[in-house]
Amino acid sequence: MGLTLAQIAEEINGRVIGDATYEVSSVGTLSNAESSQLSFLSNSKYKKFLKQSQAGAIIVSKDMSEYVVTNAIEVDDPYVAYAKAASLLHPVKKHSAAIHPSAAIDPSAEIGSNVSIGAHVVIEPGVIIKDNVTIGPGCVIEHDVILRKGVTLRPNVTLCFGVDIGERTIIHPGVVIGADGFGIANDNGHWIKVPQVGSVKIGSDVEIGANTTIDRGAIEDTVIADGVKLDNQIQIGHNVTIGKHSVIAGCTGIAGSTSIGEYCAIGGGTGMAGHINIANGVQLTGMSMVTKSINEAGVYSSGIPVEPTKQWHKNVIRYRQMDKLFDRVKQLEEQDKD
Amino acid sequence: MGLTLAQIAEEINGRVIGDATYEVSSVGTLSNAESSQLSFLSNSKYKKFLKQSQAGAIIVSKDMSEYVVTNAIEVDDPYVAYAKAASLLHPVKKHSAAIHPSAAIDPSAEIGSNVSIGAHVVIEPGVIIKDNVTIGPGCVIEHDVILRKGVTLRPNVTLCFGVDIGERTIIHPGVVIGADGFGIANDNGHWIKVPQVGSVKIGSDVEIGANTTIDRGAIEDTVIADGVKLDNQIQIGHNVTIGKHSVIAGCTGIAGSTSIGEYCAIGGGTGMAGHINIANGVQLTGMSMVTKSINEAGVYSSGIPVEPTKQWHKNVIRYRQMDKLFDRVKQLEEQDKD
Amino acid sequence: MGLTLAQIAEEINGRVIGDATYEVSSVGTLSNAESSQLSFLSNSKYKKFLKQSQAGAIIVSKDMSEYVVTNAIEVDDPYVAYAKAASLLHPVKKHSAAIHPSAAIDPSAEIGSNVSIGAHVVIEPGVIIKDNVTIGPGCVIEHDVILRKGVTLRPNVTLCFGVDIGERTIIHPGVVIGADGFGIANDNGHWIKVPQVGSVKIGSDVEIGANTTIDRGAIEDTVIADGVKLDNQIQIGHNVTIGKHSVIAGCTGIAGSTSIGEYCAIGGGTGMAGHINIANGVQLTGMSMVTKSINEAGVYSSGIPVEPTKQWHKNVIRYRQMDKLFDRVKQLEEQDKD
Repeated sequence: MGLTLAQIAEEINGRVIGDATYEVSSVGTLSNAESSQLSFLSNSKYKKFLKQSQAGAIIVSKDMSEYVVTNAIEVDDPYVAYAKAASLLHPVKKHSAAIHPSAAIDPSAEIGSNVSIGAHVVIEPGVIIKDNVTIGPGCVIEHDVILRKGVTLRPNVTLCFGVDIGERTIIHPGVVIGADGFGIANDNGHWIKVPQVGSVKIGSDVEIGANTTIDRGAIEDTVIADGVKLDNQIQIGHNVTIGKHSVIAGCTGIAGSTSIGEYCAIGGGTGMAGHINIANGVQLTGMSMVTKSINEAGVYSSGIPVEPTKQWHKNVIRYRQMDKLFDRVKQLEEQDKD
Repeated sequence: MGLTLAQIAEEINGRVIGDATYEVSSVGTLSNAESSQLSFLSNSKYKKFLKQSQAGAIIVSKDMSEYVVTNAIEVDDPYVAYAKAASLLHPVKKHSAAIHPSAAIDPSAEIGSNVSIGAHVVIEPGVIIKDNVTIGPGCVIEHDVILRKGVTLRPNVTLCFGVDIGERTIIHPGVVIGADGFGIANDNGHWIKVPQVGSVKIGSDVEIGANTTIDRGAIEDTVIADGVKLDNQIQIGHNVTIGKHSVIAGCTGIAGSTSIGEYCAIGGGTGMAGHINIANGVQLTGMSMVTKSINEAGVYSSGIPVEPTKQWHKNVIRYRQMDKLFDRVKQLEEQDKD
Repeated sequence: MGLTLAQIAEEINGRVIGDATYEVSSVGTLSNAESSQLSFLSNSKYKKFLKQSQAGAIIVSKDMSEYVVTNAIEVDDPYVAYAKAASLLHPVKKHSAAIHPSAAIDPSAEIGSNVSIGAHVVIEPGVIIKDNVTIGPGCVIEHDVILRKGVTLRPNVTLCFGVDIGERTIIHPGVVIGADGFGIANDNGHWIKVPQVGSVKIGSDVEIGANTTIDRGAIEDTVIADGVKLDNQIQIGHNVTIGKHSVIAGCTGIAGSTSIGEYCAIGGGTGMAGHINIANGVQLTGMSMVTKSINEAGVYSSGIPVEPTKQWHKNVIRYRQMDKLFDRVKQLEEQDKD
């Protein structure tokens, strides 16, 4: 079950320093790894842990290998290399290509080869499931959904009618894709429902975290491009589009019809207004409040971090008196002119 | 399957300009609609799209019909009229009034006529289901729940014991209604559970978005009035009451015992403290922080939108120096007096 | 079904003033309780309701009993005493120790005595379920999960492989424990998945609110200590640790590897950056933004509460001009020196 350092180094494009025949069988942290484990150092701040580490081998960048007292594998990017090595040592447990007898599968559904369908799954008419798809227990897949090759649905996922999930995309438990967008029109004080006739199109190699929700489009589709990674408990409104290889951290909410570019990185707890555009390469720190389009790549922030409550009280009061302070300063300036 | 413009105009109280016998079969956006589709213009900002639109007909307000180069339907409120027309062209697909054999239904449950119950649904003792109710696959309906006429539960909804859902209310996937409120009492440093013996009462024509949670009351009930529309991932604490025809956008959290009036409109990501009152007709913009009661109708806001991170850093520092700045200005004023 | 005041007083360590043989059968609020109900007063602000209350008996602190016009039970802490009395009058309805025939249970699972398993539950290989566990309908329990004595899973909970749930812990509907953490590494612009090989360990007497998510650790475990109480829709990132008897209100998000101490109280909607430490005994008010470690117990806050939108606009503009204001004040000071 173990792999030699030579085998790992070959896969992660690294160079072994030490015993290339040494075998490791799992990964561990620098502090707690045992001699059968592989560790890594990607942040030089933790360099001091190299000396005491009991790991059997450590993945490091070239400038760090001299500090390793055990075996090392030198690489360009230790974190990426670690990710690849960990995938080798901890391969995803393949579910057997079986269909649980309790699954309620409409006979009109097309099911590819090597498909695993868990207990109590529901698959409605017209669903298309390509090869190598894994569907966890309790998932509900409404009519006319398409699951492309290699999709993984973890347990209790809900895919509403007609949504289209790209190849190798992973969807975590509790996710809801394709529920109606929040479309309401005010008819003399009462809100009436605006039918949501679009769908959701998810690209390839996307990952969607637990309990995240992605609404179907009002007229056209909500679109998540290839390689997008979404954390848990994110809310994506109708007709949002997210460009390739953008990542969004947990608890972020994006209102309808907003368009996010490619290669963006959005911190957790961010809120975005609807009908705005975020340029490619925009980064937002956590809890950002975005009310207008951002037209240039760069790092943006908002919010004022915590302070002791007494001080906070005082500062909030001062904040509210600021306008008067401007007037007072102006008056002083005018007096000075005299 | 199509409808003539005359038929649609009659239902939406509009006037056809052009060929009243023209048929459309679905809706489309101004930019992408085809000749078989109906579109609409509700925001005059998009007037320029009228000329190029390939739509078969366009719903517009009276002052806009002169710019339409195809058929038009003139109405008072194009968005409301569009909502109604879209409902005609895209009627909700009725589930057949069937009970899936895999549903686990307690024999004591009362089930009305024309009820649809999906696969793997669980219905516990004492549940009352009125006529024309649709229950999606995977829903769990605990004992003594009441689903009134025409309720729609989408898949994987959880209704805890005793909750009461009003007529025609729509509940989206992953919603949890009636879980215990967050009631804890500090018993010498350890938190003990306060039993949550109230329930949840939801009115008629309410819509509740995916993965929203509404807790049961501590002693009395949590109450959502008729016509309230809740978006996704909203958290409603125990004993909250929300008045008629109020709407709340996604990711909003409302702490226990807070009372929201009628006809309120609450932006996404808003947070409200517990035990406060929000007057009728209050509007809150997105990410509002509400710590005290709001006693008058009006629009309220908080939060400081993003700026480039360098500037943000500087501004946060300045914010924290504000109190000293007030002192400095005061000193200047005193010097000036001398 | 009722209890005498004497019986209740004994259990809650109180003293009856009035008729100790009087029976009550449920709890009610001061305003609405009937003569068969027990109420309580814990906040002296509501003292005025004592006079009109129709409750059969009222739990009060010693200094309040003179204002009670019906029977009273004097205690040290009325809210804690109420919690205990309510638990006596409203015991949790025990599910019968039955296993629903529709549950899909792997034969390798170990199931203790007095265990209740609801309809459509899925229990995978290697799961260990100790005595007196209740599993609501629709729960999915992946392989090698441990549910210790007296655990309660409400409906539609998802426990991913290998997670360990401590004694008497209560988990509400829609909760997901042990989904993959948000581990991604940037491999030349594309994000690749970092395997999440840790698990989640939840202590005893923990309560976890509806639709909350707790991710599995990247290498080591995510750990929630004994007595922690989590409200709804909280997101806990990978490798977070939360110390004993800390409580967190709804909609809070905690990024990966952050460590929260013991006896903390965190307000709803709070956001915490990753890789920081929060000392024991820290309290945070609602919607706090925590970007750095907090090393001392105390109360902390951030955020600026709502104001009328017009004023908000003006204040945001002033905020952004603050830096210039500092310059202007400095200039005035220098002029004054001259």
